[in-house]
Amino acid sequence: MLDKDFFTPASLAVIGASGNPEKLGYVLLQNILEGGYQWGVYPVNPKEREILSRPVYANVRDIPDPVDLALVVVPGQAVMGVLQDCAARGIKRIVMISAGFKEIGEAGLEREREMLRLAEENGMRILGPNCLGFIDAGIKLNATFASGVHEAGNIALVAQSGAMRQSFWDWAQMTGGGFSKFVSLGNAANITESDVIEMLRDDEQTQVITAYLEGISDGRRFRSLAAAVSRVKPLLVLKVGRSAAGSRASVSHTGSLAGDNEIHEAVFRQTGIIQAQTPEQLFDYSYGLATQPLLRGDRIAIITNAGGPGVMASDAIAASGLQLAKFSEATVDQLRAVMPSFGSSSNPVDLTGGATDEMYRQVLETVLADDGVDGLLVVLCPQGPVNVAGTAAAVAEVSPQFDKPVFANFMGALDHDADLAVLREHSVPNYLSPERAVDGFTAMNRYRRWLEMEVEPAVKFDYDRTAVEQTLHNDSQSEPRVIAGQPALQILEAVGIPTARASLATDAEAAVRLAAEIGYPVVMKIESPDIVHKTEFGGVVVGLDSTEAIRAAYETMVANVQKHGVSRIDGVMLQKMATGREVILGLKRDAQYGHAVLFGIGGIYAEVMKDVSLRVAPLTRRDAADMIHEIRSYALLAGARGAEPADLEALTESLLRLSQLAGDFPQIRELDINPLLVAKIGEGVTAVDCRLVI
Amino acid sequence: MLDKDFFTPASLAVIGASGNPEKLGYVLLQNILEGGYQWGVYPVNPKEREILSRPVYANVRDIPDPVDLALVVVPGQAVMGVLQDCAARGIKRIVMISAGFKEIGEAGLEREREMLRLAEENGMRILGPNCLGFIDAGIKLNATFASGVHEAGNIALVAQSGAMRQSFWDWAQMTGGGFSKFVSLGNAANITESDVIEMLRDDEQTQVITAYLEGISDGRRFRSLAAAVSRVKPLLVLKVGRSAAGSRASVSHTGSLAGDNEIHEAVFRQTGIIQAQTPEQLFDYSYGLATQPLLRGDRIAIITNAGGPGVMASDAIAASGLQLAKFSEATVDQLRAVMPSFGSSSNPVDLTGGATDEMYRQVLETVLADDGVDGLLVVLCPQGPVNVAGTAAAVAEVSPQFDKPVFANFMGALDHDADLAVLREHSVPNYLSPERAVDGFTAMNRYRRWLEMEVEPAVKFDYDRTAVEQTLHNDSQSEPRVIAGQPALQILEAVGIPTARASLATDAEAAVRLAAEIGYPVVMKIESPDIVHKTEFGGVVVGLDSTEAIRAAYETMVANVQKHGVSRIDGVMLQKMATGREVILGLKRDAQYGHAVLFGIGGIYAEVMKDVSLRVAPLTRRDAADMIHEIRSYALLAGARGAEPADLEALTESLLRLSQLAGDFPQIRELDINPLLVAKIGEGVTAVDCRLVI
Repeated sequence: MLDKDFFTPASLAVIGASGNPEKLGYVLLQNILEGGYQWGVYPVNPKEREILSRPVYANVRDIPDPVDLALVVVPGQAVMGVLQDCAARGIKRIVMISAGFKEIGEAGLEREREMLRLAEENGMRILGPNCLGFIDAGIKLNATFASGVHEAGNIALVAQSGAMRQSFWDWAQMTGGGFSKFVSLGNAANITESDVIEMLRDDEQTQVITAYLEGISDGRRFRSLAAAVSRVKPLLVLKVGRSAAGSRASVSHTGSLAGDNEIHEAVFRQTGIIQAQTPEQLFDYSYGLATQPLLRGDRIAIITNAGGPGVMASDAIAASGLQLAKFSEATVDQLRAVMPSFGSSSNPVDLTGGATDEMYRQVLETVLADDGVDGLLVVLCPQGPVNVAGTAAAVAEVSPQFDKPVFANFMGALDHDADLAVLREHSVPNYLSPERAVDGFTAMNRYRRWLEMEVEPAVKFDYDRTAVEQTLHNDSQSEPRVIAGQPALQILEAVGIPTARASLATDAEAAVRLAAEIGYPVVMKIESPDIVHKTEFGGVVVGLDSTEAIRAAYETMVANVQKHGVSRIDGVMLQKMATGREVILGLKRDAQYGHAVLFGIGGIYAEVMKDVSLRVAPLTRRDAADMIHEIRSYALLAGARGAEPADLEALTESLLRLSQLAGDFPQIRELDINPLLVAKIGEGVTAVDCRLVI
Repeated sequence: MLDKDFFTPASLAVIGASGNPEKLGYVLLQNILEGGYQWGVYPVNPKEREILSRPVYANVRDIPDPVDLALVVVPGQAVMGVLQDCAARGIKRIVMISAGFKEIGEAGLEREREMLRLAEENGMRILGPNCLGFIDAGIKLNATFASGVHEAGNIALVAQSGAMRQSFWDWAQMTGGGFSKFVSLGNAANITESDVIEMLRDDEQTQVITAYLEGISDGRRFRSLAAAVSRVKPLLVLKVGRSAAGSRASVSHTGSLAGDNEIHEAVFRQTGIIQAQTPEQLFDYSYGLATQPLLRGDRIAIITNAGGPGVMASDAIAASGLQLAKFSEATVDQLRAVMPSFGSSSNPVDLTGGATDEMYRQVLETVLADDGVDGLLVVLCPQGPVNVAGTAAAVAEVSPQFDKPVFANFMGALDHDADLAVLREHSVPNYLSPERAVDGFTAMNRYRRWLEMEVEPAVKFDYDRTAVEQTLHNDSQSEPRVIAGQPALQILEAVGIPTARASLATDAEAAVRLAAEIGYPVVMKIESPDIVHKTEFGGVVVGLDSTEAIRAAYETMVANVQKHGVSRIDGVMLQKMATGREVILGLKRDAQYGHAVLFGIGGIYAEVMKDVSLRVAPLTRRDAADMIHEIRSYALLAGARGAEPADLEALTESLLRLSQLAGDFPQIRELDINPLLVAKIGEGVTAVDCRLVI
């Protein structure tokens, strides 16, 4: 675990400090000295005597006082020597701003490995390399080569790109937002995003953690850590690089439907991470969470002095899954008494262009006192007689009297900077548009719901693990192996997922005998190692209810697949024809997180509509239930338009058993159950076909 | 048509000008005088002698010089007297800023009607009432009571809410954008959004028209006007109030699936309007269109000095339907020669933190010269040695040498205002984030594709109109009438949409006789005025292939519906069983635009998945084709997973014939064809069931 004092050093050396204002080593030192950091700062450079009125040491070993942390900005080739000096000096905390590592290719990669070995041997922790540094607002330390002083706040930003600091800075300039810490991970060779997030969980100045990530260093650790951190404080992630992956060829439905991006999103949902899609969302989401009390429900009230923004906010609320609060009659009566008769006293409250700050104050008090209101958005358009500063003061004074979040959208923020200072002082966030304020509520509501969900224990079933092992090993093909048909269904049976009885018949007469055993009607499917999608080849016939039908279908089927140039035919599989709604279940092994579990509506629709949901194993019962509810065609399973509701209980259990199978057999690369038939309530499920890639 | 000089008056009276700085009548006059308007300004107020050093007239009749336009800011009760004075003085152009009309209820509504009568009698055109006024940047006239001087630009804004001016102003402050005209419509009692948009089409200073609309005054005029205007210059609309409607009860699928919002969006698509969902989108979309040459293709290049924003821009491009440009080998070679070896010379080009302005300049030239690049986004993060002003100058100087749009995303715009002035001077838009710049390209690409589409003639079919009329009138029920079953199918036959043969049998034996006539297999459906969704009641049986099957089905079906408490049973309808993919076609009469035509995937999925598309009649052939392509399950019709491709030609024709039926018979309120079966290519379509509400 990363030392919690890593970013609050009691003294520091700047190795590579420079007297040339165009060098990073100068800018860095200047930022540290000008930022207000109170403790010892020791510039190191063998060629300089004094920089910025500070004495310069030739080597870090020459510094007589204790050195808590070293910032390194020397050229790449000098890095290892500097690190050895630091090791000799007993410095355990390094911030490696220098570039020239993994990012420049093979030579740099070797240097990075060497650096990691040295860190390992000496118990050093290293931020970077190739990073911007860090900022700690609490001790006024700007240990980056980026200029600009931020308002201190309680949002921490962990970023794999230094450019995010600039985005954050731009946003802070516009809104008055601020942060507690900024940590630039650079190559994240030694200190990873998980290390920093873990440390920030216990950082008292940080109320909200935001992270900009291009990749995840250790998926399993990240997942368990995120789930724990998000119980303590909100964790928001902007994951970029969404378009890069996902197009790799795959032989299974699950493989093609579960892209890297979808798997990341599944993990975020399972761990309570609030995902942002753009930097603006990251800021807007964290802004409200960092400044105001949490929502207790989803009913939002709006007060405005201009109709348009009220309508826009209402549209955004309707689109976001929040509710427009309904006022009590007493509230409406009180509102009518203080506002213009032609205004709107229902939600959104429109005070019209004639609104005054006193009117705002009274309406704020009335609306916030209504038990049917969980959160409030106050919109102000600087027009007519309204006093912007007075209204801002009213919002700042009234809102702390109620334990409910209040957001502002005062337009013209750049023109009214001084008028709005009172909002910043009282931590009322002023959003740049009504939609963005509603976005802030949406994120807050998501976090509220996460906190309200109890932590669920993992579900474990007893099953015949040996049978699965035997089936997996009996198969004699070379790697990657495909297990399909009967052996695949045997694995499902062993793990406790019911399947259709099925047996292989190698000719038409054998099929007839088998059908008599199984019982009519039966389904017949061609069995060939060369065929993946049997339907396309005319290789599936359903509803066979007589000897004649079976003989005829056998001949047609063989002819069909031969017509497609397939010669390797093992025979046909016969199964009792099961009924129910077709769904698809699947597994896909992910390099980062383990196995992804997929659920979707079955048949031809799965691929065309991409109506699927995803979670990463192990699943809790709620994960499985969420997966089922999440698909667009959920209503079909629940019993839309007079159809019988399906056995969702049995379906949930199948997902949980599949998740357990994945955990026990990491060698499963991909698995499709397609279709699984879900019968009426109480009548269970039947896996009709299954396919594994090992 | 609104006079093109309405907003460029040669002189104006301010009736209700005030000497009290807290009154609108003072602020308005002050804005006009301080804005730089060069012509005659005549304050009018019987109680004042001089305001802001100008002589005041007691009555507009007393002004000796010509008065081209009157701005009215008197209290509501004085309005009619003032208008009569204006009429007597021969003033035809009025801007009614005063409130106290429709927006205050019944009394105000009467005043508004009176005002309109007076306008009619005297040939006056009136903007407002209850509006903010207007701004014309060309003649430096700020005839609003909102303060703040805008940079002149070429974007016009027409708004039904005055607050939009403030949003626009906030955005302009942040980006340096500007506008040609701002027109606040207020109640739009006499001058509507269509009037102003029509005028702006011919306004030379306006290159892009943006509109904020809460409703449409005259849907049919708006539609034809918009289609014409958007051929001349981009027309962007932010339509709010999306959440208000759409929940009204409806007896048909089409009625419930075609909400007001969906119909507006259909019209926007058919007329080339670029729809924005938020004010930010409205600004971002117009910003690029107003400043840069149009895209000629959809291949976008990115140059950046920080990896993160490059990845974010790539994600946004992948999500938006644009393409990441692929450079030629020559381009890559040239890039390698000028940039750091560890940067990325493929798209997105990452110059890394070591980028200089000279490097930017060379790379800009190389990338823009590549024939595979249609547009360029230049990202700059102010870090390392980069010179912001020098890079901005390079972008401003290089980009005009190529007839391709170039957008910037220079971060830290608020800190580097002076450095970035050169971008504004050379009309290079600087977006606030990479995603928002990509949004700008997306809108531009949408407009390019609209311009590239040729104007299509309407399609007209000959059909038996008399037969339709007779069927409509023969039906004897009271209004609103429902026509279903056989008569409804007769109407479709008459208009040229093939239907399944169907006849009514009133008992089981009649059904057996009928089936022999039609030919097996047949479909049987219960016929009752009390049943809408027959499937839910067990009132449909398919695939009946014998006398016995028909007798058995008849009994079961009658028993089923009686079990549901339905007693009025007319018998059963028998149809030959048609095959093909099930789709739904529908009509819904819309108060604004005429009839909406709906298309969707059929069966139980139509409602559950809401996989439908919508256009407003009359349809062109392309509209119909677009509707078919637009649904998510289009691949099913086109022949996914080895299925036979469906007869889309016949389907397109059915949509066109339905559109024509709607145009000829406005009394049709709702119509569902559910299902229409679409057979294989060349085998046509069959309407199986149909229902009209008249």
